[in-house]
Amino acid sequence: MSEQIKIVMAQINPIVGDIDGNVHMIIEAAQQAKQQHEADIVVFPELTITGYPPEDLLFRQALYIQVDAALSTICEAVQDVVVVIGYPMMDDLGERFNMAAWIEKGQIQASYIKQNLPNYSVFDEKRYFESGDQSCVVTYKGVSFGLLICEDIWKISPASQAVASGAEALLILNASPFFSEKHQDRIDVVKRRISEVSVPVIYVNQIGGQDELVFDGGSFATCAEGEVQVQAPEFKEALTPVTLLKQGNSVAIMPGEQAELYEDEARVYQALVMGVRDYIQKNGFNGALLGLSGGIDSALTLAIAVDALGADKVEAVMMPFRYTADISIEDAKLEADALGVHYHSIPIEDMYNAFESALATRFEGYEPDLTEENLQARIRGTVLMSISNKVGKLVLATSNKSEVAVGYSTLYGDMVGGFSPLKDVPKTLVYRLSKYRNTLSQVIPERVITRPPSAELRPDQKDQDSLPDYDILDSIIENYVKYDKSPTQIVEEFGFEAKQVESVVRMINRSEYKRRQAAPGVKITKRAFGRDRRYPITNQYRE
Amino acid sequence: MSEQIKIVMAQINPIVGDIDGNVHMIIEAAQQAKQQHEADIVVFPELTITGYPPEDLLFRQALYIQVDAALSTICEAVQDVVVVIGYPMMDDLGERFNMAAWIEKGQIQASYIKQNLPNYSVFDEKRYFESGDQSCVVTYKGVSFGLLICEDIWKISPASQAVASGAEALLILNASPFFSEKHQDRIDVVKRRISEVSVPVIYVNQIGGQDELVFDGGSFATCAEGEVQVQAPEFKEALTPVTLLKQGNSVAIMPGEQAELYEDEARVYQALVMGVRDYIQKNGFNGALLGLSGGIDSALTLAIAVDALGADKVEAVMMPFRYTADISIEDAKLEADALGVHYHSIPIEDMYNAFESALATRFEGYEPDLTEENLQARIRGTVLMSISNKVGKLVLATSNKSEVAVGYSTLYGDMVGGFSPLKDVPKTLVYRLSKYRNTLSQVIPERVITRPPSAELRPDQKDQDSLPDYDILDSIIENYVKYDKSPTQIVEEFGFEAKQVESVVRMINRSEYKRRQAAPGVKITKRAFGRDRRYPITNQYRE
Repeated sequence: MSEQIKIVMAQINPIVGDIDGNVHMIIEAAQQAKQQHEADIVVFPELTITGYPPEDLLFRQALYIQVDAALSTICEAVQDVVVVIGYPMMDDLGERFNMAAWIEKGQIQASYIKQNLPNYSVFDEKRYFESGDQSCVVTYKGVSFGLLICEDIWKISPASQAVASGAEALLILNASPFFSEKHQDRIDVVKRRISEVSVPVIYVNQIGGQDELVFDGGSFATCAEGEVQVQAPEFKEALTPVTLLKQGNSVAIMPGEQAELYEDEARVYQALVMGVRDYIQKNGFNGALLGLSGGIDSALTLAIAVDALGADKVEAVMMPFRYTADISIEDAKLEADALGVHYHSIPIEDMYNAFESALATRFEGYEPDLTEENLQARIRGTVLMSISNKVGKLVLATSNKSEVAVGYSTLYGDMVGGFSPLKDVPKTLVYRLSKYRNTLSQVIPERVITRPPSAELRPDQKDQDSLPDYDILDSIIENYVKYDKSPTQIVEEFGFEAKQVESVVRMINRSEYKRRQAAPGVKITKRAFGRDRRYPITNQYRE
Repeated sequence: MSEQIKIVMAQINPIVGDIDGNVHMIIEAAQQAKQQHEADIVVFPELTITGYPPEDLLFRQALYIQVDAALSTICEAVQDVVVVIGYPMMDDLGERFNMAAWIEKGQIQASYIKQNLPNYSVFDEKRYFESGDQSCVVTYKGVSFGLLICEDIWKISPASQAVASGAEALLILNASPFFSEKHQDRIDVVKRRISEVSVPVIYVNQIGGQDELVFDGGSFATCAEGEVQVQAPEFKEALTPVTLLKQGNSVAIMPGEQAELYEDEARVYQALVMGVRDYIQKNGFNGALLGLSGGIDSALTLAIAVDALGADKVEAVMMPFRYTADISIEDAKLEADALGVHYHSIPIEDMYNAFESALATRFEGYEPDLTEENLQARIRGTVLMSISNKVGKLVLATSNKSEVAVGYSTLYGDMVGGFSPLKDVPKTLVYRLSKYRNTLSQVIPERVITRPPSAELRPDQKDQDSLPDYDILDSIIENYVKYDKSPTQIVEEFGFEAKQVESVVRMINRSEYKRRQAAPGVKITKRAFGRDRRYPITNQYRE
């Protein structure tokens, strides 16, 4: 005898805290999965009802009452298809759990408590949850399914425990945030698990941006040998059907949709676009605004903003000063025209002069220094924030990760903004992403990519007057920040000058106070600044 | 037979990451304890060698090599007195532990692994450490001492385990951060433990400011009945001797120094002074700078800065505009004079006019609104930052917790600053602290305390045009933020208008993005903004 079961991977984009909205989204997805794909089972991502990560909202008692009500609503609304869903639960002792429920015929037939609680990188789950120790296996149409949640699959025990309890296939609810190598990491870890437990895996991930995190989706189903039989798209809501076939004692996944995956720069670019779009839309802004300098960072940020929101929602402002090169003004205009955004120019000379006069007495006896450079940046920041306040568009900061790392940016100046798209994008990747974007359509003038980068805050200034070449700088940053290597190790491994490495490391340590006041931005590397790297500001550590 | 053992509680102020400096401090304290008090044993705070909390510095492998070297240095330098010290350790598998060592005659004779790892509030110890499960009891001159670390004493098991293993007295190494009720909490929890295990406790806490945390010291020793026999001072480095007397099977703590403790406002004021002093000094600034408005927040901030650093290190700037009342100008001058700080006035009219002209075209068709108010604040912020850049003094922001909670402040305006002393001080407490400070010497003019508060950003503006009375506002904030109560609960419990409560809660939720870019400030309540309350910015949760 053989039995087919249709499982739909519901790759949705919930909003953190929006319980009513998320419930509506869940019910609609379940109904569509039934109608369009004749689904038997619809599997949703981790903590579907609250969105992920709800952070300290999990400490609010009222949340659990609302989650209970949401579960009842779902039980009532969806009775003709099994729904597997994630949510937080609080017991009578006030202990909290990260749960998954199997909802069938209007009732929670079984539930599972997450066992492995990640408490590293951006994750704080031990702050909130107690862990479970039991498997949850449900038999449906003769097939036994084991439920697991996200981190559970990254270690052996919960999967082998489920299989020991009879599971013939694993349903895994995930909220697995993006970084550039993450999709491959997930496939690898699932294959490793399968090599140990030899059952098919249905892995459902959410999509969407949530503050500094982007979830890339890319849900997939593998057979018991580890081959990916069904691949859902990345960065897109999707209801992707998976057909499970049981014949005798064997459970197979039939080949199905194979969405094409993005590669390298294209993938990171999608993550940035989704991060910007969701931050702006989920927070209710009516568009985005940024300062165009004629340099590559603002050019790329502009392209991302337009791809995220549409040209009519984006405004670019050039704010020239006496050190702005003519070609910067020309290139900024070219970029704005190529993308078709609202563009205008506000020279800052008069404002600068007014500050200079006001400060003249206090500054008597002092030479010009970085103060005057920062002042230009702060005037520009204030102009942008004034327009933002007046017209309701969010300011996008344009600093890249290399600048954020070494503090090559002005606090309350070019760091001004509600969101910072390139915050985790090293300068060398800014170049690669710009070239990639130009392959779709030419929006960044060639010479913006080829001319030496400059902040244009004093005559003939170049970034490389103050910093090593960006390929060296980015390598030092990657090794010091991502891999926690010591300066000595970096010198030995790459042959850079010791002085150069030490100087970069000193700059990184000294600018933690700036990063603490920086806008959020999309995490795209394995270790971003922000929750991912918690450093003291007051810190005399030297290696 | 009877035996006396002299234990010194070494209440020191380490600097996070400054391993060499901390080792020097430890050796000197041990030598002094020996010389001045004929110490047998010197007990130091938790993670003495690295300072607390080292945060993600704990992921750096090189740190552990340096800590090992530091331990060797201490072993070599201090041989005539037992040193009990805290430090992080990494084993061969790369697992990390929060340790205490008993160093006697130049060797680590025993060591202990912390068992209870706090992972709530500001603590992330499960991010870094694995927990131990063994007691550590060392016998010295016939008395068996059990070692425990901080959170261990907050639950029953590690203490009872140590006593079951023969401990006749407990030595507890702590890095227990301050909030206003904390000292009493500690005494209470120690008494509860003693009621269960009936042995004397020697509780050693560090002092000093570390970013948003202040450690208040207040080390103490209790007898087996729970009475505090020796009390070290708060907010002061101290080597406080404790005499332990063993007669037969009984171990007693002899009555000793009883430092007077601070009360209420005086205690909070000391915490703020220490937080400001240590942030500025440990980060190497040569003084502090702030904008004086003639209002109470900047007046109190000025007093704290002067008490922290001395008048000669503090500069105050008045930045009047067309809406500044004459009495504000007078009062600002009176405050600066009373405290003897460098004071000057920089009117912002010309800078404001320059921005207004520059923005005129873009603002055509728009009415004046909050934009123009924010602009004034941002010009002031830019003036302060320019002076800071030029002269090297740190800008202190002057926002209080009530403003920070509801977002009644301008991002990149009055929020500008490297440190924000009143960030966790609700407005009603600002008044109480101001009155307290005036009892020491009259530095805040009476009418600054009695006149209705105003931001003076438009004609005849009063805070209470936009906000509830501060006693109501602060009560709503306390209940919503500190106790996580729902608006409904708050309305029921306090009888406030539902609309008023909902409006405040909405303001709190909407201004998370501002707080994320705020300067650090001293935690003085049980729940501060910052690491203590991790909320999503993108958050549609409504209760």
